[in-house]
Amino acid sequence: TRPMPMPFGLRSISLSALQPSDTFQRRHNSPTLDEQAKMAEFCGFETVDKMIDATVPKAILREKMNLGFFDQGLTEAQLLGHMKDLAAKNKVFKSHIGMGYYDTYVPPVILRNIMENPAWYTQYTPYQAEIAQGRLESLLNFQTMITDLTGMPMSNASLLDEGTAAAEAMGMCTSIARGKKKTFLIADNCHPQTIDICITRAPGLGMNAVVANLKQFDYSSKDVCGVLVQYPATDGEVIDYSDFVKNAHAHGVKVVMATDLLALTSLKPPGEFGADMTVGSAQRFGVPMGYGGPHAAFLATSQEYKRLMPGRIIGVTIDSGGKPALRMAMQTREQHIRRDKATSNICTAQALLANMAAMYAVYHGPEGLKMIADRVHGLASVFATGVSKLSGTKATAGAFFDTVKVSVPEGQASKIASFAREHGVNLRVLDSSSLTVAFDETTSIADVDKLFAIFAGGKSVDFTAESLAPEAASRVPKGLERTSPYLTHPIFNAYHSEHELLRYLYRLQAKDLSLVHSMIPLGSCTMKLNATTEMMPVTWPEFANLHPFAPTEQTEGFQEMFRNLGDMLCEITGFDSMSLQPNAGAAGEYAGLMVIRAYHDSRGDRHRNVCIIPTSAHGTNPASAAMCGMKIVAVGTDAKGNVDIEALRKAAEANKENLAALMITYPSTHGVYEEGVDEICRIIHQNGGQVYMDGANMNAQVGLTSPGFIGADVCHLNLHKTFCIPHGGGGPGMGPIGVKKHLAPFLPSHPVIPTGGYPLPEKVQPLGAIAAAPWGSALILPISYAYIAMMGSEGLTDASKIAILNANYMAKRLENDYKILFRGDNGTCAHEFIIDLRSFKDTAHIEAEDVAKRLMDYGYHAPTMSWPVSGTLMIEPTESESMAELDRFCNALISIREEIRAIEEGRADDKVNVLKCAPHTAAVVLADEWTRPYSREVAAFPASWVKASKFWPTTGRVDNVYGDRHLICTLQQENGVDEVAVAA
Amino acid sequence: TRPMPMPFGLRSISLSALQPSDTFQRRHNSPTLDEQAKMAEFCGFETVDKMIDATVPKAILREKMNLGFFDQGLTEAQLLGHMKDLAAKNKVFKSHIGMGYYDTYVPPVILRNIMENPAWYTQYTPYQAEIAQGRLESLLNFQTMITDLTGMPMSNASLLDEGTAAAEAMGMCTSIARGKKKTFLIADNCHPQTIDICITRAPGLGMNAVVANLKQFDYSSKDVCGVLVQYPATDGEVIDYSDFVKNAHAHGVKVVMATDLLALTSLKPPGEFGADMTVGSAQRFGVPMGYGGPHAAFLATSQEYKRLMPGRIIGVTIDSGGKPALRMAMQTREQHIRRDKATSNICTAQALLANMAAMYAVYHGPEGLKMIADRVHGLASVFATGVSKLSGTKATAGAFFDTVKVSVPEGQASKIASFAREHGVNLRVLDSSSLTVAFDETTSIADVDKLFAIFAGGKSVDFTAESLAPEAASRVPKGLERTSPYLTHPIFNAYHSEHELLRYLYRLQAKDLSLVHSMIPLGSCTMKLNATTEMMPVTWPEFANLHPFAPTEQTEGFQEMFRNLGDMLCEITGFDSMSLQPNAGAAGEYAGLMVIRAYHDSRGDRHRNVCIIPTSAHGTNPASAAMCGMKIVAVGTDAKGNVDIEALRKAAEANKENLAALMITYPSTHGVYEEGVDEICRIIHQNGGQVYMDGANMNAQVGLTSPGFIGADVCHLNLHKTFCIPHGGGGPGMGPIGVKKHLAPFLPSHPVIPTGGYPLPEKVQPLGAIAAAPWGSALILPISYAYIAMMGSEGLTDASKIAILNANYMAKRLENDYKILFRGDNGTCAHEFIIDLRSFKDTAHIEAEDVAKRLMDYGYHAPTMSWPVSGTLMIEPTESESMAELDRFCNALISIREEIRAIEEGRADDKVNVLKCAPHTAAVVLADEWTRPYSREVAAFPASWVKASKFWPTTGRVDNVYGDRHLICTLQQENGVDEVAVAA
Ligand SMILES: Cc1ncc(COP(=O)(O)O)c(C=O)c1O
Ligand SMILES: Cc1ncc(COP(=O)(O)O)c(C=O)c1O
Ligand SMILES: O=C([O-])O
Repeated sequence: TRPMPMPFGLRSISLSALQPSDTFQRRHNSPTLDEQAKMAEFCGFETVDKMIDATVPKAILREKMNLGFFDQGLTEAQLLGHMKDLAAKNKVFKSHIGMGYYDTYVPPVILRNIMENPAWYTQYTPYQAEIAQGRLESLLNFQTMITDLTGMPMSNASLLDEGTAAAEAMGMCTSIARGKKKTFLIADNCHPQTIDICITRAPGLGMNAVVANLKQFDYSSKDVCGVLVQYPATDGEVIDYSDFVKNAHAHGVKVVMATDLLALTSLKPPGEFGADMTVGSAQRFGVPMGYGGPHAAFLATSQEYKRLMPGRIIGVTIDSGGKPALRMAMQTREQHIRRDKATSNICTAQALLANMAAMYAVYHGPEGLKMIADRVHGLASVFATGVSKLSGTKATAGAFFDTVKVSVPEGQASKIASFAREHGVNLRVLDSSSLTVAFDETTSIADVDKLFAIFAGGKSVDFTAESLAPEAASRVPKGLERTSPYLTHPIFNAYHSEHELLRYLYRLQAKDLSLVHSMIPLGSCTMKLNATTEMMPVTWPEFANLHPFAPTEQTEGFQEMFRNLGDMLCEITGFDSMSLQPNAGAAGEYAGLMVIRAYHDSRGDRHRNVCIIPTSAHGTNPASAAMCGMKIVAVGTDAKGNVDIEALRKAAEANKENLAALMITYPSTHGVYEEGVDEICRIIHQNGGQVYMDGANMNAQVGLTSPGFIGADVCHLNLHKTFCIPHGGGGPGMGPIGVKKHLAPFLPSHPVIPTGGYPLPEKVQPLGAIAAAPWGSALILPISYAYIAMMGSEGLTDASKIAILNANYMAKRLENDYKILFRGDNGTCAHEFIIDLRSFKDTAHIEAEDVAKRLMDYGYHAPTMSWPVSGTLMIEPTESESMAELDRFCNALISIREEIRAIEEGRADDKVNVLKCAPHTAAVVLADEWTRPYSREVAAFPASWVKASKFWPTTGRVDNVYGDRHLICTLQQENGVDEVAVAA
Repeated sequence: TRPMPMPFGLRSISLSALQPSDTFQRRHNSPTLDEQAKMAEFCGFETVDKMIDATVPKAILREKMNLGFFDQGLTEAQLLGHMKDLAAKNKVFKSHIGMGYYDTYVPPVILRNIMENPAWYTQYTPYQAEIAQGRLESLLNFQTMITDLTGMPMSNASLLDEGTAAAEAMGMCTSIARGKKKTFLIADNCHPQTIDICITRAPGLGMNAVVANLKQFDYSSKDVCGVLVQYPATDGEVIDYSDFVKNAHAHGVKVVMATDLLALTSLKPPGEFGADMTVGSAQRFGVPMGYGGPHAAFLATSQEYKRLMPGRIIGVTIDSGGKPALRMAMQTREQHIRRDKATSNICTAQALLANMAAMYAVYHGPEGLKMIADRVHGLASVFATGVSKLSGTKATAGAFFDTVKVSVPEGQASKIASFAREHGVNLRVLDSSSLTVAFDETTSIADVDKLFAIFAGGKSVDFTAESLAPEAASRVPKGLERTSPYLTHPIFNAYHSEHELLRYLYRLQAKDLSLVHSMIPLGSCTMKLNATTEMMPVTWPEFANLHPFAPTEQTEGFQEMFRNLGDMLCEITGFDSMSLQPNAGAAGEYAGLMVIRAYHDSRGDRHRNVCIIPTSAHGTNPASAAMCGMKIVAVGTDAKGNVDIEALRKAAEANKENLAALMITYPSTHGVYEEGVDEICRIIHQNGGQVYMDGANMNAQVGLTSPGFIGADVCHLNLHKTFCIPHGGGGPGMGPIGVKKHLAPFLPSHPVIPTGGYPLPEKVQPLGAIAAAPWGSALILPISYAYIAMMGSEGLTDASKIAILNANYMAKRLENDYKILFRGDNGTCAHEFIIDLRSFKDTAHIEAEDVAKRLMDYGYHAPTMSWPVSGTLMIEPTESESMAELDRFCNALISIREEIRAIEEGRADDKVNVLKCAPHTAAVVLADEWTRPYSREVAAFPASWVKASKFWPTTGRVDNVYGDRHLICTLQQENGVDEVAVAA
């Protein structure tokens, strides 16, 4: 009964059908071809390309990019295969290098549920506090952990790295002295990278950083504003600073102490010495070394200096219902308000890593941390005991916590280190006759035995770590033992089992809106897809577990990636060389301006210190220029939002002799491709200046034009915007800078592992280190690398086009209800646009903030509020949003416009209405009492999709002023945090 | 000014301080020592150990376990290191083996956000539909995907594997014939494992399974109830079954078609041939091969046979507000209701994998799947074209989809396969002169070129896959091309970008309560911590990407783990050998009973077919016994809930001649350590029977006693209970069985890769395969392995003790408000206990279901409801819950008791009250209209912790009856699923 097979069809196999079909581009660039066509048509263009033609000035259109091997774009599987190959070229040795970087166990529950969890890593900086209480609490935990351990009264919520944190503190010291004292003394037993960063940073601040032996510190000049000492020192020594601090204070000198959190579980904390500021890194609290970063650094000080504190600070306040709530405190210090008068240029910091470190402390608790510290110290002591028994080697007789200095016969230090490397172990060579050996959470008894074998030159040793334990003793001096308690709040004492921590993480997560919920169309922030594939290699051990100062022959995989990434970023930007060191956009600005400064200096143009900055620039621009010692000349914009070219010409010519640079953002911060940008570059060059381009809006350029092509000399890229590094709730980020050939020799290097631009020019004259690690936050570079490699040149160019298309589609959909500020000559915008809400103040007493908060009730995060124009919202959809999502967001705004109209027309109360009372929490809308003139349903379920899936804000509108008046920046035993209720 | 270091203290370093401090035990066993002491005291015991002494009968207390290398328990980092070592011993070759297992790309967004996400993998089977609408929707998508692709009207929501699905269909065929026809014909070109499973299964069902060439099928006996054919066949051939099906039907024979989902995107579906049932595996839809599983199999049929359908079926119904809602349909078919009359013994299935496969289809959509299929087919066709040009090799001239049969010179097949292996490629040898080569989603053009080189014996080939493409043609016969549409519902056509899919996953996730929210104290289900560390190796490629039939020398890492795991499970259970093949508890029961049957048979005791089962047994016990052809004799329990020993003795003696086995659960399903268990075992043995122990309650035994020690001959372990495999929303699971020496020879083997018990006895007489893969769901064994290895013998024993402690603490806390059913002689319970709610029916019209649903308003999943005693809740806290969490749960129940009291005392209405109206959705409590006699706040925020963090049920109480009356088990274009609102 079995039938014969039927004849085959004649359809032949097309070659293209044999190619991988599941390309990454169609996963990243969200709208389908169909949707793209519809949107273009809706905007009045026949095709997307016609819209692009009408939008991007002809003069700046570039040739097609060529990304070499990656030009076609790899599939996700191919990319992961390629990353595996790179990973295999990295060799993970046991690190005893220390110097501020220690191996650590990332608790798997934190690894998977924070670091690998898009609900945590795709969050934005918590500007919208009502939908960010989860990470705000976690950051408050971080601040509390820092203040408890350091013994200081207040901490910020992270800085970029320990080295820059020290430099920030240095700046604070001169500020405290109101600029009158300019000398800053640095003890020579600080980490070399910290010293180098301070030395690089000082001249821009008009300061003089002097490195000296602690014993030779000389305050007689009366010009010393502060000192930096390290505790424990870079060679491991633990010094009692009691008298030192008294003496410094007696001379009116502020003391900055760089320190180590794990050591502080066992050592008398800096606050108890009377230190004025404390800096350090929280890396070893469960954040992988990652070949240098990202990690959360901190700066802690007393409330006296709170207004000078750099970076974000989380504080307790109350909400509209009078309930405790958290939000960022004292934002008035920051550059988005204070510009060149800001306390610092820090914007994106290290929120995600601060969360990880805080959770590490929550998970281990004070006893757990102390046990880890005791083991680390115990192993170090045992090692010191044993190594001193070997012939020719001797451990320090002094005090130490985790790092043991060993003296060896003259000339032997490098030989021992190289013998160690043959056995997969990295040591630090201090000088020709000494090494240091650092111990950490991951060191085992077996590792100590291995070290004995290494120091014995492979000869057999007649003791073991175990056998020595009884004779080894604590090497912490009695008077320096920690006696004060720390981490006493219930949060650090309740979640020590995996279930408890897991649920705590999820309770916090549930309070926070992120990209897993809906689009976050923050203008200038480019909140696009952070694809899983891009994120995966980040937590592979071959990338995560390398020490930044490991010999480069052990890091060939990273090196190859840096070279490829440098090449591709050069192709994308039109530059000749890239530095991968800066850890954020603002750090890139600083680095770029310092390169310009170094260039002028090299030509004898030391006097060139004027920086022209349009008034529409992001606050980090003037703040960064100020840090470089530049004089800022502001230039305004015309009615269309473009830089006023004539005013610029005048300013340039007036400052011809001293012109250092122009800082300009392109497309403009108003979301427009200014037609005159090439002209602007010419004017600056003609007057002896260099053009610094702020690359925040690079997502509107890639593949269409480039900073280099337009005429910029240097530009930073926010890899955490255009190139897919997730924002992490306020960091990490990466801000590499690209430069033209003439600037390449000046790119930053590093005192421990020399580096420079990719590609590296033949002759170099580097400006010094501007970050603690040679390649900044190397661990997150694979994200951007993967993005570029998978998109290929066409995919990237399409991304830019679709980003522009999406923005224009939204502008078109909204234009009947909202005034669109600033469009180009053809009526189109770039990849973002501004809606103007100022008129509603008069017509309905409604302000931008009211609209922003009401959007939460619709399940959305507000666009960028009141920047660059106060009273507006700036909307940037990115290419990763589908037409359906764009429509939903537009529908929300249109619906809100109706709600405003109801007020305008007297159908709704002008004080108690859905906007003024937004956001609406569940507790409010289902309270037994309801006296509002609008209904509960309208409050909470204003749109159909919200009914299907509601995201609940967990707090009413926060009161910023109250919190700044009653500044509280740590957990209070009594402060009624939700969690206390859960724990109870 | 630098002070001298102070003298060191004299504290020496203790050796224990040098040991790793962060042990896994304290992360898994949640209560601290302090809390444990408090709880024991509260229960009236001086110490935990005293409570244990009072609870576990002396007679069965075992000696301390010895887990060898793992006895002390590894730390999490040590375990991960060990797993890396094992992983390195597995070699991932390119697989062209086929046979139902294909390499596939797991879309990273699904990998990370479902497979690696505790919010998905820790869910329980959706018995509480109101807090499970997310996965219910996903499983409805799965069913729709299956019905669309197969062309059948209805599908279940997964079965264990393709082979057992075929066996289930075989059983259905005889049931349809009301047991009157007993012969089942199996085409010899089905997969060998499918054939073997059916042959093993048939005798138990009283059936006769006959394997024959399709052309020789003979229906003349009139005893044929059904046939099994495969499409495409195991050798790749695609047969037109049109006439075959007509002919079978003409003879009153039902046709079961095993099929392949990817092929069905291109081939006329079984439904269009008129097949009565279709079975297959969804593995290649984005679920890793995993050395055999877990994967979701399916069975699809017409509504005519719906009551005979094995496994869970999701159906559409309405909720208390009349809105559409989902829940499991027709549960009355299942063993928990129908016991030995159930349609199948299937309980735990493969929900998580079904979700992954469904999401793969959602992500790719119909066009995406078709592109993949076209590429796979194109590469196969090109390969067939090329291989036929080589001298001596010839591809089949027939039709195929993805698997090409190649004939080679006689005797050469194995040589070619071994040459291929030298090049990292696995082929299937069909016989001495033929091989098959299967292609899949991951095959590339380069792979085809490599195959050419292999088949050319390494000689150079003068064509390439690319060069051949133009001359290759489709090998799907014209008449068999698929013309009907599939996956037309919007859900399969809206979420093709990563952002859209990510948000869809999160919208669904937000509807489902899981262990990331709160404890799920399901009695008999042991919902303990599924630690991240245990889960991590599961998705490592060295474990995930192995074909189950890969030569064992490529899988040494797995083999080593099997040996170690077998040894440790033997030590834990007191058995002599373990089979790792059964894929769930019920599959273990079946396998264990079949082992007993084979043992009796081997002794000439074929007549021994009586199985004694206490009435308190889980429904799977009688269902499994029925599948083995056993006659069930029920024995009741006494007033204390213990097995009535005298009745048992009588039953055993009465059936002395034919006694096959007793099935008993220990501790009893009533949560009590029956004192007479050793006596019971003796009685059974004395009467010639074997003791089968149901190991579901093993969590109360580990380290304290053991099934082997107590006297059982065989026992299954639910690794997804006691041994930490997460429940996955209804699977995966693993149900290995342990046996005493005399039974070891009969443990299941496998027709492709012979296997047996660990350790393997010298002489074997295996009973055949009972699962499709030799080691069942091998990919999840690392979870249990990691758990045991990290806990060590003391940690495991502590876990049992704390599980018992936690249960007793809760019972004590609740006893004033609820009647506790069944405690042991000393007034203690085992690791679970039952609270009796029956009296509330009279006093307040309240039933167990009302309490269960009201718990949702408190943020909790109900305990096991109405099993083993109707009108009760069975509470099993496990050792992974902290005292704080136990207290919160008790507080919820006590508060509910107050709510009941209010009804009893007339303070609350007895119809409209917080219990009867539970659960309360957000939509209900904030509706503008509120007419209930209780307040909105009381409805939604009945406890302080709920105010701090609310989990919202998304649907009102579901109407089970309505849905079963109007059975709808697929997505309906119009059916108003929430998602359509979001998409719109
Ligand atoms: C235009 C512009 N420039 C600079 C920055 C600063 O970048 P970062 O936050 O990475 O320091 C931003 C940040 O949003 C920006 O929008
Ligand atoms: C006592 C008992 N036996 C057997 C089973 C069946 O196990 P599985 O669901 O793994 O098939 C269960 C499941 O809950 C059970 O509780
Ligand atoms: O983060 C911003 O300042 O845009």
